[in-house]
Amino acid sequence: MTGADHVEITVLTDIVREAAKRYMYDKVAARRIQVKGLGDFVTEVDSDIQNFIHAELLKRYPDIQFLGEENGEQNVDFSGTYWVLDPVDGTSNLIHDYHHSAISLALMEGVYSVKCVIYNPYLDEMFTAVKGQGAFLNGKPIHVSTTGDMGMALIGVGTSPYHRDLAASSFTIIREVFERCADIRRSGSAALDMAWVAAGRLDAYFEGRVKLWDCAAGRLLIAEAGGVTMNWEGQQIGNALESSIVTGTPEIVEQLQNYFLEELHTA
Amino acid sequence: MTGADHVEITVLTDIVREAAKRYMYDKVAARRIQVKGLGDFVTEVDSDIQNFIHAELLKRYPDIQFLGEENGEQNVDFSGTYWVLDPVDGTSNLIHDYHHSAISLALMEGVYSVKCVIYNPYLDEMFTAVKGQGAFLNGKPIHVSTTGDMGMALIGVGTSPYHRDLAASSFTIIREVFERCADIRRSGSAALDMAWVAAGRLDAYFEGRVKLWDCAAGRLLIAEAGGVTMNWEGQQIGNALESSIVTGTPEIVEQLQNYFLEELHTA
Repeated sequence: MTGADHVEITVLTDIVREAAKRYMYDKVAARRIQVKGLGDFVTEVDSDIQNFIHAELLKRYPDIQFLGEENGEQNVDFSGTYWVLDPVDGTSNLIHDYHHSAISLALMEGVYSVKCVIYNPYLDEMFTAVKGQGAFLNGKPIHVSTTGDMGMALIGVGTSPYHRDLAASSFTIIREVFERCADIRRSGSAALDMAWVAAGRLDAYFEGRVKLWDCAAGRLLIAEAGGVTMNWEGQQIGNALESSIVTGTPEIVEQLQNYFLEELHTA
Repeated sequence: MTGADHVEITVLTDIVREAAKRYMYDKVAARRIQVKGLGDFVTEVDSDIQNFIHAELLKRYPDIQFLGEENGEQNVDFSGTYWVLDPVDGTSNLIHDYHHSAISLALMEGVYSVKCVIYNPYLDEMFTAVKGQGAFLNGKPIHVSTTGDMGMALIGVGTSPYHRDLAASSFTIIREVFERCADIRRSGSAALDMAWVAAGRLDAYFEGRVKLWDCAAGRLLIAEAGGVTMNWEGQQIGNALESSIVTGTPEIVEQLQNYFLEELHTA
């Protein structure tokens, strides 16, 4: 029995729901902002949620390591068992009261995500998955869409706002994809884009740079919902702290992958 | 007394809320789709909502003309009083069960929007405005943001998906704006982008081509919330059936306007 086996998903959903209830609607704390860079912010809500969830997890599972967005790596042994938390995925949205942010929590063993929850308090939607046991939204099974035709696909895109140097190549790819698909969406929350791919609301999602805490939970949801996730070179993301990402239905990801390979070869 | 004066906003909110309740969650009807063009769809939900609202309005206000997305102009005298309805703003979102669509209804007199409601059933948010009487979200006053600094601005963008010929110039402008602002958002509902500008959740929104039914309600909300709306040439949109649009806080719109003028001159 590993450290991850005795973790109950209902314990995680309770902790995450309580964190959202306590801190996510605090508009004063959401305006206490530190600017990390252009478009890169952290608020007191991020810290409050991370501190609360970290403390609750530590009480119940003292043997499991912790990696959170707001404190960096902290000597995690990435071959072991560890939490990966994004306390507020969609911080710019939170600051603007743009009702689309989530708490994203994954339990990882080495390179694998094995349990996860993503919670969007605005729609009261709790996404959960356990490796090998399917993906769920508020307890009901979800599946990626059956879309194989790019012309019908709705595709979430990321702008990698913390990497402005990528803007030119990102927007070239976004435009090329836009010209072939039904339309693009840019929601500002990678975790929710991935949860929505798992629920079939988006047919795919891609971004030039995401952090492990942005995608560790979402990619387990998508795998359990029948989709695939890889980096733009077609490799598994594993526990890379930063990576490109493309995820969605197998058919659409394959077609997107071809554009990325072209772009990578001509860049 | 004109035809518009005796229209009660609560009558409109009741009709619109009832239409959403009856038809907007019908996932079977949302999948009965006619393709009008690449990325341009109409579903049975659109027709059901328009038919219901049109009939309800006709019963109560038989003297007011009607313009709906799903039946074209139908000999409306645009110097008189008329309804402008988008039964489902965000039809692609509806088809994909992407929880972000709205019913948008404006009452116009000549070139002016004088009363409006925009309803998002997913968040149960009812935006209302009457000319000269302020803008409201679920009965509470709303205001555009106080953001004047482009580097802090969150900006909604449209891709004009029915005008693929505009993609190159649209994406050039979107990228140029992205390089200067906090980040962009692409929600797929012009009416909600505008309602969210009025509520201060977005600092601005722009798109190369919108229809009158996409923006007639939203621009009244924004005006009553302290913002401004114009086309890319800096003129009032009036009752033009199709137009470019830029709207938001006065400071951000002025800065965006300068990019558009440059783009228009170099295009």
